[in-house]
Amino acid sequence: MSNLADSLRLYLVTDDRPDAESVIAVVRQAIMGGVTAVQLRRKTDDGGKFVELGRSLRKLTREFGVLFFVNDRVDVALLTDADGVHVGQSDISCKDARKLVGNKIIGVSAANVEEARKAEADGADYLGIGAIYQTSSKDDADMTSLAELRRISQATNVPLVAIGGITSERVPEVIGAGAHGVAVMSAIMSATDPKLAAGRLLTKL
Amino acid sequence: MSNLADSLRLYLVTDDRPDAESVIAVVRQAIMGGVTAVQLRRKTDDGGKFVELGRSLRKLTREFGVLFFVNDRVDVALLTDADGVHVGQSDISCKDARKLVGNKIIGVSAANVEEARKAEADGADYLGIGAIYQTSSKDDADMTSLAELRRISQATNVPLVAIGGITSERVPEVIGAGAHGVAVMSAIMSATDPKLAAGRLLTKL
Ligand code: NI
Repeated sequence: MSNLADSLRLYLVTDDRPDAESVIAVVRQAIMGGVTAVQLRRKTDDGGKFVELGRSLRKLTREFGVLFFVNDRVDVALLTDADGVHVGQSDISCKDARKLVGNKIIGVSAANVEEARKAEADGADYLGIGAIYQTSSKDDADMTSLAELRRISQATNVPLVAIGGITSERVPEVIGAGAHGVAVMSAIMSATDPKLAAGRLLTKL
Repeated sequence: MSNLADSLRLYLVTDDRPDAESVIAVVRQAIMGGVTAVQLRRKTDDGGKFVELGRSLRKLTREFGVLFFVNDRVDVALLTDADGVHVGQSDISCKDARKLVGNKIIGVSAANVEEARKAEADGADYLGIGAIYQTSSKDDADMTSLAELRRISQATNVPLVAIGGITSERVPEVIGAGAHGVAVMSAIMSATDPKLAAGRLLTKL
């Protein structure tokens, strides 16, 4: 368990709600509840709003010593001084991202052993593995069984963050299958009490 | 009329058709017809496809000595070794783009004198002015009258590329109002003969 793995233990991915102030408020509550890393994921924002919200979250995460990642857009990651960028299989490749970000952290989504091995070989610092469970927040996501997660944990040497429909009840079996941390979106973003929701997840980690 | 203005005389903006091979084929024809600059604009592609198509167009434009721009995504502009990036009012700002692109060309969309003056002050190398005429290719675009285009040409010192519904018949009044070049999308991308369409526009420039 590396230092990076510790910092990826409870990883919050933001949703696409139009209200940026609401995103900031929920992220703040989530951090108070114990979130250790935050990824800003905005599929509908233009670059200007994306950068603006990113800078707000960068300030907030720095205040609390929490890692800050930007999904997909390497330019936004650079402009917001993010700790890293997270890329999916259809985004800018890990090798291309590396050309632009230097020694920032690069996370890559992988759904199976093959994708995981390739990402590690390409220089990924951590892997997002999933979707482990069915989820409504990602369209036609590739699914990853707990058995495949276990195979990935045996085939790779970078921290693994499991993602997709993870609840506090499911954390033990996911960690048991080899994940170093869990990433959640709706379990915290849509919770009535995001701080409480983060705390409940953290107690199982 | 600067050297850059000459290179921006007939500026093609690509459309969002899913078929990348078709984009490349049309751009090739358009360049043969006289297009002097190409902007890759992809609102629906993920980063991976965007970079891949951008590299193909970079190779093609270089072969013909034509300028190559990427719309909105500064990261894709950097990875494809584009000549520059074009940003709209809601994209990454001109000042932020400059932090990442060094001395690459930056174009900024402006619809009025105020936006044009600000963009020039922020370091824009050229301005895209419009929409001059109604167009279906851009949703709720701000409109710019020919009179406003003339005011912008008097208020600024960078090359102006007029955009929005421009046809070969309309080129003379647009150039007469102070534009150094014209940008088109559907007039070439949707033409039965893109090479002929580009040639017809060029004869009016
Ligand atoms: Ni001039």
